[in-house]
Amino acid sequence: MQEKAFQDFYPDEFSHCYGCGRLNAHGLKIKSFWDGEESVAVFSPEEKYMALPGFVYGGLIASLIDCHGTGTAAAASYRKENRPMDSEPPFRFVTASLKIDFLAPTPLGTALEIRGRVIEIKGKKVVVEAKLSAGKTLCATGTVVAVQLPPSMMAK
Amino acid sequence: MQEKAFQDFYPDEFSHCYGCGRLNAHGLKIKSFWDGEESVAVFSPEEKYMALPGFVYGGLIASLIDCHGTGTAAAASYRKENRPMDSEPPFRFVTASLKIDFLAPTPLGTALEIRGRVIEIKGKKVVVEAKLSAGKTLCATGTVVAVQLPPSMMAK
Repeated sequence: MQEKAFQDFYPDEFSHCYGCGRLNAHGLKIKSFWDGEESVAVFSPEEKYMALPGFVYGGLIASLIDCHGTGTAAAASYRKENRPMDSEPPFRFVTASLKIDFLAPTPLGTALEIRGRVIEIKGKKVVVEAKLSAGKTLCATGTVVAVQLPPSMMAK
Repeated sequence: MQEKAFQDFYPDEFSHCYGCGRLNAHGLKIKSFWDGEESVAVFSPEEKYMALPGFVYGGLIASLIDCHGTGTAAAASYRKENRPMDSEPPFRFVTASLKIDFLAPTPLGTALEIRGRVIEIKGKKVVVEAKLSAGKTLCATGTVVAVQLPPSMMAK
């Protein structure tokens, strides 16, 4: 794994996301890295993010897969162009669609691993499949259809 | 609309969810009500839940649709049995799958309306379709497949 996470390369103005922005003081600050052809993020949720005592709530699982997916989409786009993640212009993706299947209750109090794999990269669209595990238990799978940030979101 | 929200009828032990638990001090505490055949929740996100300045992050949108969906599933189950929501045994649902399509950037700083409609209710499963709007703009649609809380999640 490399030292800096995908999200650490986001320009400041795109680093305020509650899920993955390093400049969001209240957010999750998830960090994604390459591990060969897969991307991986490890995250230990605070107890407040529970569904019931002992279990992670689904919205957090969706957030982790979503932001890991858009991060993976950006990293894969640099890879495809064979240029480093600190080169210009920067890639920043948002989510067009998100599908999560919750396969098993996700325990709180343990590190969760989210692994991503790019299954399509074409034009401004990248599709990432993700698996979220707690130890050896596969808790959720997801598909993120990520698209490059539209100009309408850059205007503000 | 009635006074008490669907979530206000959840038993205490099922009221800790970050998205919808009235006993989670840090959570979103979303509140859902019937409006005829549809369920409706109105939510104004705090600024920290941004994707970029001025826009709501996708994980929050997923959370709102998710928890509004499971709440609607519970309320619909009482309706189907023609009994009030404070009667025993209580219904509490979790999400088996969640699909969100993000149609337009969701603005921050305005109330969001989430509307749900039950499209299937059968055995322990309820499928809810949801629309999330900001004013007249339809920002996201979602489908929640909700299932009754499995015994494995009650054990803790």
